[in-house]
Amino acid sequence: MSEIREIETPALLVDLGLLEANLARGAEVFAGRGLAYRPHAKTHKSAAIARKQLEHGAAGICCAKLAEAEVLAAAGINDILITTPVVGGAKIARLADLNRRIRAAVVVDDPGNAREIAAAAARAGVVVDVLVEVDVGQERCGVRTPEAAVVLARTVETARGLRFRGLQGYQGAGQLVRLHRERRAAVERASARLRLVVAALAEVGLTTAVLTGGGTGTAALDVEAGVLTELQPGSYVFMDASYGALEWEPGGAAPPFAQSLTVLSRVISRPSPRRVVVDAGLKALSSDAGPPLVMGLDSARFSFAGDEHGIVELDDADAPALGEAIELVPSHCDTTVNLHDTFVVVRAGEVECTWPIDARGRMQ
Amino acid sequence: MSEIREIETPALLVDLGLLEANLARGAEVFAGRGLAYRPHAKTHKSAAIARKQLEHGAAGICCAKLAEAEVLAAAGINDILITTPVVGGAKIARLADLNRRIRAAVVVDDPGNAREIAAAAARAGVVVDVLVEVDVGQERCGVRTPEAAVVLARTVETARGLRFRGLQGYQGAGQLVRLHRERRAAVERASARLRLVVAALAEVGLTTAVLTGGGTGTAALDVEAGVLTELQPGSYVFMDASYGALEWEPGGAAPPFAQSLTVLSRVISRPSPRRVVVDAGLKALSSDAGPPLVMGLDSARFSFAGDEHGIVELDDADAPALGEAIELVPSHCDTTVNLHDTFVVVRAGEVECTWPIDARGRMQ
Repeated sequence: MSEIREIETPALLVDLGLLEANLARGAEVFAGRGLAYRPHAKTHKSAAIARKQLEHGAAGICCAKLAEAEVLAAAGINDILITTPVVGGAKIARLADLNRRIRAAVVVDDPGNAREIAAAAARAGVVVDVLVEVDVGQERCGVRTPEAAVVLARTVETARGLRFRGLQGYQGAGQLVRLHRERRAAVERASARLRLVVAALAEVGLTTAVLTGGGTGTAALDVEAGVLTELQPGSYVFMDASYGALEWEPGGAAPPFAQSLTVLSRVISRPSPRRVVVDAGLKALSSDAGPPLVMGLDSARFSFAGDEHGIVELDDADAPALGEAIELVPSHCDTTVNLHDTFVVVRAGEVECTWPIDARGRMQ
Repeated sequence: MSEIREIETPALLVDLGLLEANLARGAEVFAGRGLAYRPHAKTHKSAAIARKQLEHGAAGICCAKLAEAEVLAAAGINDILITTPVVGGAKIARLADLNRRIRAAVVVDDPGNAREIAAAAARAGVVVDVLVEVDVGQERCGVRTPEAAVVLARTVETARGLRFRGLQGYQGAGQLVRLHRERRAAVERASARLRLVVAALAEVGLTTAVLTGGGTGTAALDVEAGVLTELQPGSYVFMDASYGALEWEPGGAAPPFAQSLTVLSRVISRPSPRRVVVDAGLKALSSDAGPPLVMGLDSARFSFAGDEHGIVELDDADAPALGEAIELVPSHCDTTVNLHDTFVVVRAGEVECTWPIDARGRMQ
């Protein structure tokens, strides 16, 4: 066991106490009113954290990609939903093969794709659980109309090798709408669209056992809306500056989850008492959601200064000395985690262990 | 040997014919007028490509980080300059240890740091080559004044365990100034600052054997300016959308280097004939320099749609079908390469081999 000051930087730190608090709090928030929750592993890409989520009552795990699911399956996770269409002969054969070892459900939004999966499943002698993805407003994947959903659900329902399980209606764009009332409105619009599809399916006798979607930002509102049966929160385990900036309840409120993830950096140059250069840049911190925050220093501003450099500017002339540590709060946890190979797991200022980021870079 | 259409996506492709043309062209451009060139491995993080650069006459290799240098050293690269200060006891001990196996020079901008490196070198029984980093306008690392450079160079010169080799004056911000005349002006400003430091050192009898800096965007102008003795081009091996958009010569001209790097993606959803979703998002393509370009389709626009999704919109109603390939030109090659574990090396439409991205994620 070593101390934080001995950690080589830049390093991705997880505070285990805060992570465990988030896991416990998540079990309360997401499993309210009889809902199930299936946390999204695209955030952490870690078998260790997925196992903890299952210990906290998660119904299974979500993966964004087949390769992510394969890695977690090899590490013993045996109930996974792949939340992105799996397209193409080779990938579909891998999906069928994965279903020989674990339950690996998948979403579809195209009848031809569903038939290909059915054929591969039949060849492999497995039955693949399938959910029809519905576009509830994100304008990404998913069928657009209740009619298209009915056609596709029937294709799935009648195909040997597939088992129709229900719908995925995920509105990613709603997760980070800052104002609570606007986020609620986004959830209501998405819920209304999903409700229409459920009704259209019911009319033709198709039952939707699972209605899955939602995320960290909308979870409480999704529970309230009462349409989804299963939530897919990802970021709640770590949080980030984007989620931290949300108005969590009308009129404000602290986030329900703690910031358990940081990037530890060190000062490698000190051009002036108000300005230092740290050893973390675009290769240690993702920039798609803006710069990270500087932990514990509200007046400090981080700006990216290249692949391996960051600049921290301070209002007061008290910039840390060469070699001193600066802890940064990522602006987007998923894409920052994906830059690193290892979590350095700390508790009460001591390094407890490291966890591999098992599925880092596994996007195929 | 397989065909490109069999490659699992998203994948990072390198066209070997174009890469080799870039290597040959680089040897002409960068080694003009007696200059040496030391290509930057932060771009490719690959021992295979570093070896090719050495075969093309490179004087050695640059690395951004110590861990990057350690990986390349283990793969047989034996002359490396680490272009970022190496700070802290444990890292400095590693640097000294690396110098037992290869020549690993380093830049410094702080006398205390230089003394620590000297002490570690003496303990390890090695002599470490040291360059004083000069801030030539980037406002990142580097000493600010000729006086500070003299003090630091003397510290290095007189320290047992260190060998003073010269100066690094890298103006990263100048590389992507779009207009040729403005880029030339940036090079002139940086050159003038470096010249002042060289003169100040000469006055006190300190010789600068190496003056290293420059990059792909300014290389021809750096040769013309006549101050640097060694260039550090990185991106020329691959190019990207940012470098592709530069005005390479007054009044325009095609880039001197070819776009050898692409990300191969596939259509996973087709919401409309003018809009498709591909399987490459923020985890396959860096976004710090904007979205990628769509290769061979000038009218197509890519937008990021999450970690694992991209949207391609087309003016004409001819969007590719589900499963079809779309090749994307990264906006920033260095940070895109750092997301992947493997280069898929293609030549004339066939996969020739794969190369590991050996130092991916090695930022410590």
